[in-house]
Amino acid sequence: MRTLPFDKEKLEEIAAKWPTPFHVYDAAAIRKNARRLKKAFAWNEGFREYFAVKAAPNPHLMKLLKEFSFGSDCSSMAELELAERVGNTGEDIMFTSNDTPAEEFQRAWELGAIINFDDITHWNYFRAAISGMGDTADRLGERVFCCRYNPGPLKGGNSIIGKPEEAKYGFTREQLFEAYATMKEAGVKRFGLHTMVASNELNHEYIIDTAKMLFALAQEIREKTGVSVEFVNIGGGIGIPYKPTDKAMDIEAVGEGIRAAYEEQIKAAGFGPVKLYMECGRSITGPYGYLVSRVRHLKNTYRLYAGLDACMSNLMRPALYGAYHEIVVPGKESSGETSVYDVTGSLCENNDKFAVQRVLPVLERGDLVVICDAGAHGHAMGFQYNGKLRSAELLLEEDGSVREIRRAETLDDYFATLDFSTL
Amino acid sequence: MRTLPFDKEKLEEIAAKWPTPFHVYDAAAIRKNARRLKKAFAWNEGFREYFAVKAAPNPHLMKLLKEFSFGSDCSSMAELELAERVGNTGEDIMFTSNDTPAEEFQRAWELGAIINFDDITHWNYFRAAISGMGDTADRLGERVFCCRYNPGPLKGGNSIIGKPEEAKYGFTREQLFEAYATMKEAGVKRFGLHTMVASNELNHEYIIDTAKMLFALAQEIREKTGVSVEFVNIGGGIGIPYKPTDKAMDIEAVGEGIRAAYEEQIKAAGFGPVKLYMECGRSITGPYGYLVSRVRHLKNTYRLYAGLDACMSNLMRPALYGAYHEIVVPGKESSGETSVYDVTGSLCENNDKFAVQRVLPVLERGDLVVICDAGAHGHAMGFQYNGKLRSAELLLEEDGSVREIRRAETLDDYFATLDFSTL
Repeated sequence: MRTLPFDKEKLEEIAAKWPTPFHVYDAAAIRKNARRLKKAFAWNEGFREYFAVKAAPNPHLMKLLKEFSFGSDCSSMAELELAERVGNTGEDIMFTSNDTPAEEFQRAWELGAIINFDDITHWNYFRAAISGMGDTADRLGERVFCCRYNPGPLKGGNSIIGKPEEAKYGFTREQLFEAYATMKEAGVKRFGLHTMVASNELNHEYIIDTAKMLFALAQEIREKTGVSVEFVNIGGGIGIPYKPTDKAMDIEAVGEGIRAAYEEQIKAAGFGPVKLYMECGRSITGPYGYLVSRVRHLKNTYRLYAGLDACMSNLMRPALYGAYHEIVVPGKESSGETSVYDVTGSLCENNDKFAVQRVLPVLERGDLVVICDAGAHGHAMGFQYNGKLRSAELLLEEDGSVREIRRAETLDDYFATLDFSTL
Repeated sequence: MRTLPFDKEKLEEIAAKWPTPFHVYDAAAIRKNARRLKKAFAWNEGFREYFAVKAAPNPHLMKLLKEFSFGSDCSSMAELELAERVGNTGEDIMFTSNDTPAEEFQRAWELGAIINFDDITHWNYFRAAISGMGDTADRLGERVFCCRYNPGPLKGGNSIIGKPEEAKYGFTREQLFEAYATMKEAGVKRFGLHTMVASNELNHEYIIDTAKMLFALAQEIREKTGVSVEFVNIGGGIGIPYKPTDKAMDIEAVGEGIRAAYEEQIKAAGFGPVKLYMECGRSITGPYGYLVSRVRHLKNTYRLYAGLDACMSNLMRPALYGAYHEIVVPGKESSGETSVYDVTGSLCENNDKFAVQRVLPVLERGDLVVICDAGAHGHAMGFQYNGKLRSAELLLEEDGSVREIRRAETLDDYFATLDFSTL
């Protein structure tokens, strides 16, 4: 059973001010987790985590992570804007996009971001995009450029992200060598190397292997093109234990494993120093965000159903992927009486279920229900299908105070893009 | 190859005013389709289609359908509001919700909607909800109430909606009888009967069988409770031929099949008249909406990729369900040269693909690309994940003019629920 950072009384107090459903994030736990990550990689001078904004695009959470010098991993105009508004500019931004529009390259350039190209054609496209932005070509030498590697059949697939050779992302090996040579020729002096081959991976060896692959590739790039990368970005993909049977990734073991590889492949080879970058999202905020809801209806037909006031618009993962999320009923944690429920939302989709045939304490109308591990790819993925509105986001501070970091949507938000006067 | 209601020249003209991506709906085709549906069921006096607002919640499309007296099938507060704003009130609204909040029952009651209960407990919940709304109990006799039947293991499942006994919706048989008796006792005089057991079904026998099931059940309800339903609502679920190999449902055959069942089960039994209602969404607008996009990037790694300026935020079905959508490249329809592409969007998700390994005319940057059958569950399901913005919706009128029926989102819309001043 999960330990929550609030009890039933505290939750009722919060719900009196912000009606359910809402997302609440545990600031203390996020800070503790950020410290742990930094410590695991303290051996690497220049280690930096670029938080994958996509996972939880809330500027207040980004600001909190900035206390630990976490940068912003952005892949859209909106995310670039968010980064700037929390004060992440220049090399605080890793712009890792794909199928990128010219205006996003322009904005990233304007902000001084590290630009991580997804494709060999993007270099010329990027040059053309910024060509009208004053005397920029001279500045190519000051900025940092990176390429995203797709190992293709050379690396086995992760179960979520799929086989690399079927993934839309990145360069082949041959394209990488060509790109670094071309950029060097054009006056670029500062380089990085990136890959992202995992999502929600729980095996730490997979992450260590990814680092080894990039260290070897960095060597090869140097040999073939004379380009020494100043950082290697191994992407994110560190999973979290959604299921009670999942084992959390041992981040210290990841740190140690990568350190050993670094000693052998970089240091002993007389290469480096090379900074290690990561762009984790899920593992940074995922376990520390909760979707808090209330039982609205109990229904007994061919099964028992507990209908919540939250629906898949607040958390899509169970409905979309059949993903497991732990459910806690505060105040009934040690209740002996249990029943088996399908826990549903009110969306007019049969897959709008947070849990299927889950053993839970016997529920009553009005019970508070906490859905765990909703802190990443939770609120962020919500849609407004069926006219459902997205909920508020709250931050539980270390002193127990709670503040709203995103208001709940209203019908006016839902109707904002419609003009009824022309009906 | 699909025939589009516009050629390349016309599309370029539209795109000059509304930059891609955008959704465009073909008003003439929607009208023709609406006429066809009405004609297929003209034998039933009182036949009515309640358009499933969820499929395309745009008031301008709802208004267009109102020309044919189509009502609104609503299942949320936002959809009730939309119905009212297009002038659908009273029995123009079928309120078919589930896990329903009190305030939605109140609003539906206020609007005079037909209230379709999803569960046996909802009657008391509803009575309590409206109890404070003045002298309402007397009006129970004027209003129409309906129950949603879930046949459970008595009916085989449809591939999308799943097995009825695992579905969260509806009453069991025994609960139905109890509910009608209770409502009658409370003074209700006007009743309907509903089910919805299919989604995107292409076999017309399945729909006819559903009607037969409800006709028989209506008889049984009369025998057991003395309640005669004034309508039978067979739900929606009529599929559309997404794939070139799919055969469109023969709507005339559905009409004829249900007419034959009606003659035998209702008329010959001396029962009736019973009005037939449907709540189709997909089959009404689905084939007549197009997502228009442009090729932004072409990429050649382990596969050929065509990156569009649309992404899964505009049309989720291919990424979510692996659904097939026909893709046409205007001006290149009869091009002899083809290539095999994965057609992608720019979202930072590997499944952001409109098509996988699709044979298409050889593409160039800037080519217009039309994704077909996007007129239902298209724009409506879009999310803002990864900071992506939802596109405009346009209506192509019969005279060739085009008007905007929903503006594109801006960054301000995306940031609307955030307060940056407290950062």
